Amino acid sequence: MKLLVVGSMALDSVETPFGKEENVLGGSASYFSLAASMFTDVCIVAVVGQDFPEEHLELFRSKGIDLKGVTRESGETFRWEGRYGYDLGDPETLGTYLNVFQDFNPVIPDEYRDTEFVFLANIDPELQLRVLKQVKKPKLVACDTMNYWIENKPEQLKEVIKHVDLLMLNDSESRILAGKASITQAARYILDLGPKVLIVKRGEYGALMFSKEGIFWAPSYPLEDVIDPTGAGDSFAGGFMGFLAAHETVDQAALKTAVVYGSVIASFAVENFSVRRTAQLKKSEIDKRFTAFLQLSRLD
Amino acid sequence: MKLLVVGSMALDSVETPFGKEENVLGGSASYFSLAASMFTDVCIVAVVGQDFPEEHLELFRSKGIDLKGVTRESGETFRWEGRYGYDLGDPETLGTYLNVFQDFNPVIPDEYRDTEFVFLANIDPELQLRVLKQVKKPKLVACDTMNYWIENKPEQLKEVIKHVDLLMLNDSESRILAGKASITQAARYILDLGPKVLIVKRGEYGALMFSKEGIFWAPSYPLEDVIDPTGAGDSFAGGFMGFLAAHETVDQAALKTAVVYGSVIASFAVENFSVRRTAQLKKSEIDKRFTAFLQLSRLD
Repeated sequence: MKLLVVGSMALDSVETPFGKEENVLGGSASYFSLAASMFTDVCIVAVVGQDFPEEHLELFRSKGIDLKGVTRESGETFRWEGRYGYDLGDPETLGTYLNVFQDFNPVIPDEYRDTEFVFLANIDPELQLRVLKQVKKPKLVACDTMNYWIENKPEQLKEVIKHVDLLMLNDSESRILAGKASITQAARYILDLGPKVLIVKRGEYGALMFSKEGIFWAPSYPLEDVIDPTGAGDSFAGGFMGFLAAHETVDQAALKTAVVYGSVIASFAVENFSVRRTAQLKKSEIDKRFTAFLQLSRLD
Repeated sequence: MKLLVVGSMALDSVETPFGKEENVLGGSASYFSLAASMFTDVCIVAVVGQDFPEEHLELFRSKGIDLKGVTRESGETFRWEGRYGYDLGDPETLGTYLNVFQDFNPVIPDEYRDTEFVFLANIDPELQLRVLKQVKKPKLVACDTMNYWIENKPEQLKEVIKHVDLLMLNDSESRILAGKASITQAARYILDLGPKVLIVKRGEYGALMFSKEGIFWAPSYPLEDVIDPTGAGDSFAGGFMGFLAAHETVDQAALKTAVVYGSVIASFAVENFSVRRTAQLKKSEIDKRFTAFLQLSRLD
């Protein structure tokens, strides 16, 4: 089934202990859609500026990604500049230039309004609400957010959370949103806000999925080299939602498998700068690492 | 089979966001032996002062723990005072009073010298070396350490590591010892120093086991309430070594199962201050949580 993502397309300048890359393809919708395209058909709603290289659009098209919802506005593309330290934890943001993203008003093309799988990437919760009003009874709506919105637009964000099926957060976002130190208590608080499923992303420590069905724990793949963690969360979301949309049935077994596929795709995404590794991914590589993931925590 | 632990017995004063307890039973050998006693016979080599309450020794005896190697010296017992913040991560040490532990010289009683499973808890690597010289060809020697020894006695510590079968460290200790940010690279470096197995303890994020057989990932149990993390690592080690000593065979399957039992026991240990929860543990509770642990990361 088709999968719609609404998010950002960006040009990033990223520095890690392993190198520095300037004006490379970034943004939540970019990472998400390339990851999801390994599993299913994806359409993007986003905005780019006049400076956005045609070759990036070509890359998306070469993966069968539908760009009818991507508008090119006058002005420059959204830019983010960040630097990661030795531990490759949270990056220091050196600059955020919203540019054309400042006035982003997501309009879902008519033919996308009945898409059954929808991902609201990390954007202003007011925009996420506008998207929710435009789509017709999707099978699954998932959403991501960040500390900035938790702190600055808590009411609007809670309104979004109330209307989505699944929320993805990282460890500290979950604790801050719930105001609880225990991740289990934080999860219960968040599930009480509305969503049926909460996925807590924990970077190199894996991911936890909470729902009424219980708790599922997926490991993260212990990598030899992490080169650039940018986009890991969006790649996880892309693998997760891509698998679900292809699988069509959303039950606990499918959700668990989707978490593992999300982790698999994220583990590739961080092996190089920008979307470089994901753009070159082969299905056979995904299958091989999926098996390795399952082996990691098997007793027998 | 019998299991020998050489470590500390202490009186701790601990503050967490959930309370404050003064002069409660602590120390690596205490946590370790109570955990291991759920699986096998344990003997302790440690030192206490004149002020060490007889009721604590009674507790150990009630669990069948052999105290012939525990000497009572003139002076006060080793004391540690610490405070945990809201995230229950690394505690702030408010005071360390070595007291009788200052001159601790571990002498292994003759009848313990052929113990087949030996755990060198976190003490001065020079003392760990002295223990190694006193034991006769154990089946498995495991050791723990801490940043203080990695930084202050690196050569002696490397000599210990060279002669043990298994090393347990936490995440940051592994990276510091190896001088590498990637945990996979750090593990390879450490295994090259001599031990056949490295276990990286990651608190609420679980544990990783590295060896020539590959990587094993055990989750940590997502608890409702963590009251006091003190002794979690030693409780893990106690559950791990206790299971192995009872199981007798040390192969990859046994090591994996032991990691899960270690995680199970640690998950109980942090549910109350001091050794209170571990001292009340029932075998049926362990079995139940062991099953829950396996369920956590099962796809089906």
